[in-house]
Amino acid sequence: MYPKTITNLIECFKKFPGIGEKTAERLALSCLEMNEETIELFTNSLKDTKTKIKTCKNCGNLCEDDECVICKDKTRDKTMLCVVEESKNIALFEKIGSFNGLYHVLGGLISPLDGINPEDINISSLLNRIEENKIKEIILAVKPTVEGETTALYIRKILEGKDVIISKIAHGVPMGADIDYIDPLTLEIALSDRTTFS
Amino acid sequence: MYPKTITNLIECFKKFPGIGEKTAERLALSCLEMNEETIELFTNSLKDTKTKIKTCKNCGNLCEDDECVICKDKTRDKTMLCVVEESKNIALFEKIGSFNGLYHVLGGLISPLDGINPEDINISSLLNRIEENKIKEIILAVKPTVEGETTALYIRKILEGKDVIISKIAHGVPMGADIDYIDPLTLEIALSDRTTFS
Repeated sequence: MYPKTITNLIECFKKFPGIGEKTAERLALSCLEMNEETIELFTNSLKDTKTKIKTCKNCGNLCEDDECVICKDKTRDKTMLCVVEESKNIALFEKIGSFNGLYHVLGGLISPLDGINPEDINISSLLNRIEENKIKEIILAVKPTVEGETTALYIRKILEGKDVIISKIAHGVPMGADIDYIDPLTLEIALSDRTTFS
Repeated sequence: MYPKTITNLIECFKKFPGIGEKTAERLALSCLEMNEETIELFTNSLKDTKTKIKTCKNCGNLCEDDECVICKDKTRDKTMLCVVEESKNIALFEKIGSFNGLYHVLGGLISPLDGINPEDINISSLLNRIEENKIKEIILAVKPTVEGETTALYIRKILEGKDVIISKIAHGVPMGADIDYIDPLTLEIALSDRTTFS
């Protein structure tokens, strides 16, 4: 019953994850109330995702130049690498602001069942960076799933004997969470990875 | 930390009702995974909202021509008007499919406190339609709030003495709802507007 423009917009919004028919309809209709500038910024930015957005040649982060802002930043510690699965994970770490090293985006996790092998993700470029830039420590910050653990294990294996510290972010009870609602596996890890008061 | 294109997209998504920082970020990043065709359809449709979308000269429904598809439809009963607040309400009625008359979009409800008077909404055009098109019945389908009731009352007043049946949609207990959770006012209306089995 809606004009073509609106039904097209509804179809577009429905392509986003977690957006169903009702929400898509609501969003499409809200577009009618946006001013010209917003619509222009919106359409230009959408187009730019296909033309301007690249990945950083060093770390794989999203950027609009050859190098991302983090790699360009001269104040950052270039001897530390935080290894993440996707570029969007970087934003999370940057929000905390307490990590001052560089990142390395794997672009996926090893998952032989899904046909994703070590050569399909950015592991060889990680090795190159470690060798060429005298990296002192790499922090594995991949999610604690079977794929994440496999990837972490693989990276640890191929770095064996090399002069680099490998660490992983702590897993355990989230801050502010009620212990009653924590799953047994997390609790087990929280217990075995306990820290002593010094 | 995101490139300009992404932060722009996040800003655009944040302008939608009910979309906060986190969701906006998620939606903006999903745009990166859309294919060229979707991006093109999306940008074109967004632009079209400013250029192609008009309101029907008869009823005020959204359309891309002078007249909306409902007004153009020769099979519809042109002697019945369903009066709604906004054009998006029409989509709801059309989904049921049991109303075969035409619509009239008020484009707002009378609310003197907000400075919305009868002349600010499409009441005079409603009067014209009733007089010019030999309308037999108008169904008031505005929401049961103070503004809705005031608008309904005003329309009833100005149509007094005219040869047109005025009805309003039924208010009462929603189908499938548990009576325990219905507010007293709704229950009172449900009781007073009870229908007898014939």
